[in-house]
Amino acid sequence: MQIDRNFLYSVIASFLEEDIGRGDITTQSVVFDAVNGRGRFWAKQDMVVAGLEVAEAVFATLDPELEIEAFVYEGEPVKAGKELARIDGPAAVLLAGERVALNLLQRMAGVATLTRKYVDAVQGTKAHVVDTRKTIPGLRMLDKYAVLMGGGRNHRFGLDDGILIKDNHIALAGGIDVAVRRAREQAGHLHKIEVEVGNQEQLQEAIDAGADVILLDNMNPAQIAEAVKFVRDNERGRNILLEASGRITLENVAEYAHAGVDFISSGAITHSAPAVDISFKIARIA
Amino acid sequence: MQIDRNFLYSVIASFLEEDIGRGDITTQSVVFDAVNGRGRFWAKQDMVVAGLEVAEAVFATLDPELEIEAFVYEGEPVKAGKELARIDGPAAVLLAGERVALNLLQRMAGVATLTRKYVDAVQGTKAHVVDTRKTIPGLRMLDKYAVLMGGGRNHRFGLDDGILIKDNHIALAGGIDVAVRRAREQAGHLHKIEVEVGNQEQLQEAIDAGADVILLDNMNPAQIAEAVKFVRDNERGRNILLEASGRITLENVAEYAHAGVDFISSGAITHSAPAVDISFKIARIA
Amino acid sequence: MQIDRNFLYSVIASFLEEDIGRGDITTQSVVFDAVNGRGRFWAKQDMVVAGLEVAEAVFATLDPELEIEAFVYEGEPVKAGKELARIDGPAAVLLAGERVALNLLQRMAGVATLTRKYVDAVQGTKAHVVDTRKTIPGLRMLDKYAVLMGGGRNHRFGLDDGILIKDNHIALAGGIDVAVRRAREQAGHLHKIEVEVGNQEQLQEAIDAGADVILLDNMNPAQIAEAVKFVRDNERGRNILLEASGRITLENVAEYAHAGVDFISSGAITHSAPAVDISFKIARIA
Amino acid sequence: MQIDRNFLYSVIASFLEEDIGRGDITTQSVVFDAVNGRGRFWAKQDMVVAGLEVAEAVFATLDPELEIEAFVYEGEPVKAGKELARIDGPAAVLLAGERVALNLLQRMAGVATLTRKYVDAVQGTKAHVVDTRKTIPGLRMLDKYAVLMGGGRNHRFGLDDGILIKDNHIALAGGIDVAVRRAREQAGHLHKIEVEVGNQEQLQEAIDAGADVILLDNMNPAQIAEAVKFVRDNERGRNILLEASGRITLENVAEYAHAGVDFISSGAITHSAPAVDISFKIARIA
Amino acid sequence: MQIDRNFLYSVIASFLEEDIGRGDITTQSVVFDAVNGRGRFWAKQDMVVAGLEVAEAVFATLDPELEIEAFVYEGEPVKAGKELARIDGPAAVLLAGERVALNLLQRMAGVATLTRKYVDAVQGTKAHVVDTRKTIPGLRMLDKYAVLMGGGRNHRFGLDDGILIKDNHIALAGGIDVAVRRAREQAGHLHKIEVEVGNQEQLQEAIDAGADVILLDNMNPAQIAEAVKFVRDNERGRNILLEASGRITLENVAEYAHAGVDFISSGAITHSAPAVDISFKIARIA
Amino acid sequence: MQIDRNFLYSVIASFLEEDIGRGDITTQSVVFDAVNGRGRFWAKQDMVVAGLEVAEAVFATLDPELEIEAFVYEGEPVKAGKELARIDGPAAVLLAGERVALNLLQRMAGVATLTRKYVDAVQGTKAHVVDTRKTIPGLRMLDKYAVLMGGGRNHRFGLDDGILIKDNHIALAGGIDVAVRRAREQAGHLHKIEVEVGNQEQLQEAIDAGADVILLDNMNPAQIAEAVKFVRDNERGRNILLEASGRITLENVAEYAHAGVDFISSGAITHSAPAVDISFKIARIA
Repeated sequence: MQIDRNFLYSVIASFLEEDIGRGDITTQSVVFDAVNGRGRFWAKQDMVVAGLEVAEAVFATLDPELEIEAFVYEGEPVKAGKELARIDGPAAVLLAGERVALNLLQRMAGVATLTRKYVDAVQGTKAHVVDTRKTIPGLRMLDKYAVLMGGGRNHRFGLDDGILIKDNHIALAGGIDVAVRRAREQAGHLHKIEVEVGNQEQLQEAIDAGADVILLDNMNPAQIAEAVKFVRDNERGRNILLEASGRITLENVAEYAHAGVDFISSGAITHSAPAVDISFKIARIA
Repeated sequence: MQIDRNFLYSVIASFLEEDIGRGDITTQSVVFDAVNGRGRFWAKQDMVVAGLEVAEAVFATLDPELEIEAFVYEGEPVKAGKELARIDGPAAVLLAGERVALNLLQRMAGVATLTRKYVDAVQGTKAHVVDTRKTIPGLRMLDKYAVLMGGGRNHRFGLDDGILIKDNHIALAGGIDVAVRRAREQAGHLHKIEVEVGNQEQLQEAIDAGADVILLDNMNPAQIAEAVKFVRDNERGRNILLEASGRITLENVAEYAHAGVDFISSGAITHSAPAVDISFKIARIA
Repeated sequence: MQIDRNFLYSVIASFLEEDIGRGDITTQSVVFDAVNGRGRFWAKQDMVVAGLEVAEAVFATLDPELEIEAFVYEGEPVKAGKELARIDGPAAVLLAGERVALNLLQRMAGVATLTRKYVDAVQGTKAHVVDTRKTIPGLRMLDKYAVLMGGGRNHRFGLDDGILIKDNHIALAGGIDVAVRRAREQAGHLHKIEVEVGNQEQLQEAIDAGADVILLDNMNPAQIAEAVKFVRDNERGRNILLEASGRITLENVAEYAHAGVDFISSGAITHSAPAVDISFKIARIA
Repeated sequence: MQIDRNFLYSVIASFLEEDIGRGDITTQSVVFDAVNGRGRFWAKQDMVVAGLEVAEAVFATLDPELEIEAFVYEGEPVKAGKELARIDGPAAVLLAGERVALNLLQRMAGVATLTRKYVDAVQGTKAHVVDTRKTIPGLRMLDKYAVLMGGGRNHRFGLDDGILIKDNHIALAGGIDVAVRRAREQAGHLHKIEVEVGNQEQLQEAIDAGADVILLDNMNPAQIAEAVKFVRDNERGRNILLEASGRITLENVAEYAHAGVDFISSGAITHSAPAVDISFKIARIA
Repeated sequence: MQIDRNFLYSVIASFLEEDIGRGDITTQSVVFDAVNGRGRFWAKQDMVVAGLEVAEAVFATLDPELEIEAFVYEGEPVKAGKELARIDGPAAVLLAGERVALNLLQRMAGVATLTRKYVDAVQGTKAHVVDTRKTIPGLRMLDKYAVLMGGGRNHRFGLDDGILIKDNHIALAGGIDVAVRRAREQAGHLHKIEVEVGNQEQLQEAIDAGADVILLDNMNPAQIAEAVKFVRDNERGRNILLEASGRITLENVAEYAHAGVDFISSGAITHSAPAVDISFKIARIA
Repeated sequence: MQIDRNFLYSVIASFLEEDIGRGDITTQSVVFDAVNGRGRFWAKQDMVVAGLEVAEAVFATLDPELEIEAFVYEGEPVKAGKELARIDGPAAVLLAGERVALNLLQRMAGVATLTRKYVDAVQGTKAHVVDTRKTIPGLRMLDKYAVLMGGGRNHRFGLDDGILIKDNHIALAGGIDVAVRRAREQAGHLHKIEVEVGNQEQLQEAIDAGADVILLDNMNPAQIAEAVKFVRDNERGRNILLEASGRITLENVAEYAHAGVDFISSGAITHSAPAVDISFKIARIA
């Protein structure tokens, strides 16, 4: 996945406008324009790196000639104390971009770091950790990129690029069978159809309706294991992809993975990832 | 604080575009246009409410006639199981807006809930809990509103509405004295000048330079108490406002407050607030 | 399919700006502001109607109180001479919106009318006529809506909502097998994989690679029929969807349909649809 | 005519967003980032070239370093089989821009090719073929540029840069005389006044009112010839410019031209020009 | 002339954003949300009114329900002390919109007032006072509307809606004759051609070249009178429109008018019009 | 103060669009594309220079390779006849940018020139001349920059970056005391509080309420002097900053300054500054 360049520069411009507004009045009055500085990003805790390219784009928006020299690669796990990157340029530009760069970098690395913990926990199983649409509004692209850097995979990017029939849809459509049938008739022929089920009866209906993917929602690991067996034992279920969601935590994710699903989706890796701690120190240079 | 209406509708339009893109292909194929539904927001954990107006704006953007009926007020602490709000309208609209509304509401209530914990912890002291610029890029207004709803106060909204001379500025300007002097000469006459200090020597310099506000950074509660006494004992320091930041957690915030500062600023209440759990269930109505 | 309201009003505003610029200097100098008129849209040839809602949005952008009264429904085939719709309001508004409304309506009905001819031609077979990405830049949503109104179906809306591995991809990836394998590993688990093939050998490769959909490109009807048989006779090919494209015209589309494919895609129905003839006459009213 | 650079890059960005959305998921999963390719544009039918600069801007928007090497000039008539242009660069960029570039190029060359046929048909007369405002919404600049490349001329670019009093205006104003008088009083002193007439009586009124240009609408060639003679025989008509419109086709345009008008305007050259066929083949390069 | 509604609301939104930024912190902290007020606009000097509709749009942008009740009409000359308009609504909205409304109103009335002085000065002659492109960037529409309200007329709105060949063009093209000839060949057939001349020789060239309008630049009234006679005595010059510009002040404009030109253009009425004095007082209402 | 680069290029793009619209039809038809020119800016009156960087940005927007060579510095006082700057490039670009560049430059230098007159008039006193929010909508940043170039200082940039309690606020809040108290409680701790007073009684209230800055409005110099003495004689008033506004003209500003205030604010330096006269002559170069 590449973060689209035009998108990136557009959102960064708005983030900078949000933070800088009419100008950095402290720096403008306190620091002479001619002063140059070297800014260094330091990891203040163990983390998985994500977002250095985004941080670079922050400074490049303010001054197109600035480039970050990175000492780590995206997705790399690093220890506290590691110098992540360095950037030389006018001190006023470093100060103006510092906060937005850090806010983005600390969040993206935070998401990558938390995702990696889930991914490590399911190692040895065939399950992939996937994200959800429970991302920070406005940051979905960056959140999903960070998930990839943490070793996870991406689920739908939006309501327009995948068909997932959830409980609310089923209730409103009048059942799984009719919902899947309509989707098959109306949706584009390149889309698979995923159906959310909450119990054995719905599971049977989803299989019968011809779902391509089944989301097993809010079940415990034992129920999941039973459901997996039920699907695999069914002739029509052999090629159906299975996904688990709900109630999943870092503590129990391994159990879910061992229950045999193909995918485990987690909202927490994006909506509740704490920021990691990164410092940015600027020294004057000639 | 009022969230600016034009700003709010503008960002929500972009959040909806991010999530919906070219259209909600599941709902369009599965749910008939004519179906109406009632959506209910339920608290699934204890929380402080924030963002119902924002959630309403999400649905109103999709269909200007939809209005949320709220059963709680902004800033109200509620228990798990409480119905927060209800909205009636075309099912397709409820489904299209659901995720963006929840993503915003769960984050904003998350920030308010965490802030409230800090505020409760310092009760009985004169200290105010204040936020920082460590907010989610693009969501600063909403984050700062949520802090207010949690009982906190707002620090600077951006680099342009307050003067805060930090370690990097001091290093680049060549000292506290020269930095404050320049700020006094150049900045508008309605701005106070805040200076970040890390030790006793800098504290003395800041007092001598005539700082209006002093930020005591990265000190432990004992050091803070000592610094407060030092300032208050100084004739020129009597009217100086004092703020503590760095190393502060929910566990130790009370100690900081009892050390006598006027303000305690925390980045964690915005950059690391976990989302609270809220569900949205839609039932078909005539 | 619903045309997204926010999208629609946004593009119409830019279309009106393109046509009106700084103002309609003829009408402003010639027609008094107080004059009201009734505008009538007349079909001047046989056609399938599409775009009345779009035409209405044009006038509503100029004056939010104007509404078209339509005498036909979207997708309805009408004869020359039919009054399609009527709109009452300030004459200056009718004159300012006339050209943009007609340009959109004539194009959209043009696409629907041509699509309907293809759809009628394949009646009695199981083939669906589908569009392509060969739409007018900026008008894709409207073009694809018009295709639906003409009885066709929609293929991908963009590069981001479906996987179609074409000749250029195969050449650059180094073969069908490797291309499909990579797509399977990297793409989201809700996407099917379509592969374009130009001959028997590639067809075999696509089946072996596990393609979900196969695009038979630039073959004549006999070759198509042979390919269909080949796939259906193959055990792994039974559930593969088959699409034909290239060289297809209104004259030969029936032959392609009878060859047994599931989908026939045509760029001509969007990139070369002539505008239909519709007049807009305004009479003064009290 | 130069296509305004800022306008061009702005609309192309929106066209690319329409087609690419969140990213080219096929190419991203199938083609390695490091692969470079050479893309070649080939004419698959005889045509007049128009839009290569626009196609170049498509690729340059995606990657500012890419430049097309063109082998033909804008407005040049070429034969089927001619290589039009070549572009080297990252294969992923060539694939991402291909469709938008072709959609624009095929349309613009389509307009130029059809215009050229009209222009060739009137050769030997003094008549100029001119376009109308019946262009594709959003593409007027490109359509009008393509008309020039086909040897035609441009009429008004919008309602704000010329005064053309049409049948609807006359009806609403209460006659030709009053309409022209008002226009003379109110409009800027750099504008000529054109009046549409449909019969001899209106023609006399337009001459008497002092029209600078007269549009003879929906007449056959014989009627046109008679009208031309009538105007030229009138002392006040000697300097009046004459334009014919309506009912004009490629088959009869020469007759209209020989009837003696100065301009023949055609909506068909823009609203109904079929796309020409151009292919884009990419080969891997080192 | 109508000020385009979409344009007006768009620029006002940006003007309000410029002034209000993240919010009116004084009013938000000092005035309770529930307080309503009545704001009154008073003329503090004699003036010609212009811009009340614009001022209303400012408040309506902040609160769509607010409407100004005007006691004067646009273009009306009023005496100091006159109440111009009144608006009732939430006090916070009146305070937030006050400055932008006044800044626009005071400028627009300033332009109208100054223009009216020029227009009054030339009364009794056939000369029209016209504006130029020397307007405030971003405010051209409003400036030109204010000129109309002051009794003046509008020259070109931009470089795209009229042909005016000035000294720089003549120098670069190589003479008046060649410049006019090229313009005749290339420009649309609805445009007249205006040529700027600075002396008798150029005047002769412009007449010979067939200029439709001649701009007599930087001449004194006697020279102008001589030039007018020269043109009118020339058979080809009888229908040529004559415009004077340069060196014109309120003191000498009557002399220029009596010299016989059709138009007198003045940059000063827009680029140097002082703001008129208008006050806005708010009283609390129930 | 630095004019923000992204802001500058964004507004200039809209100013150019306002002036150029669909293209410079005179230059496009009259001047060959290949012609190069040298444009020179000449001062036609004595002035203080401001805005050359802005003028350069105008041309650079049209052609990124163009750069102005300036012969004067920003803020420099120059005599009539001085060549200010020179720019070489395609003649068509110089002609297209000329008017917008001059409109901005003449206004900004006009503001700087007028400001300098006020500043010179108060020389020898401690008073600073400051601007207001009475700027041209859309041009606040440029107006305030020009004030600095003229030797003045900047007051608030908007309603969000300073607290100024004016007569309307006091009336609506119910008195100075309550207004200041609320502001102290609600506003951020980096803001000083300024209160407008119109008489002795209010002055006393403002001092008692603890105002940081007091605005003495609409008083004559003698009243101001009395008020200054009153404040300075009051123990709590020693550190209060004093500002005078209202009724101030170039003729009496020195009297106000000698009355002892710290700041004198003037709306006239921005809302009524006449444009200075600058010419731009283009000569053809090889």
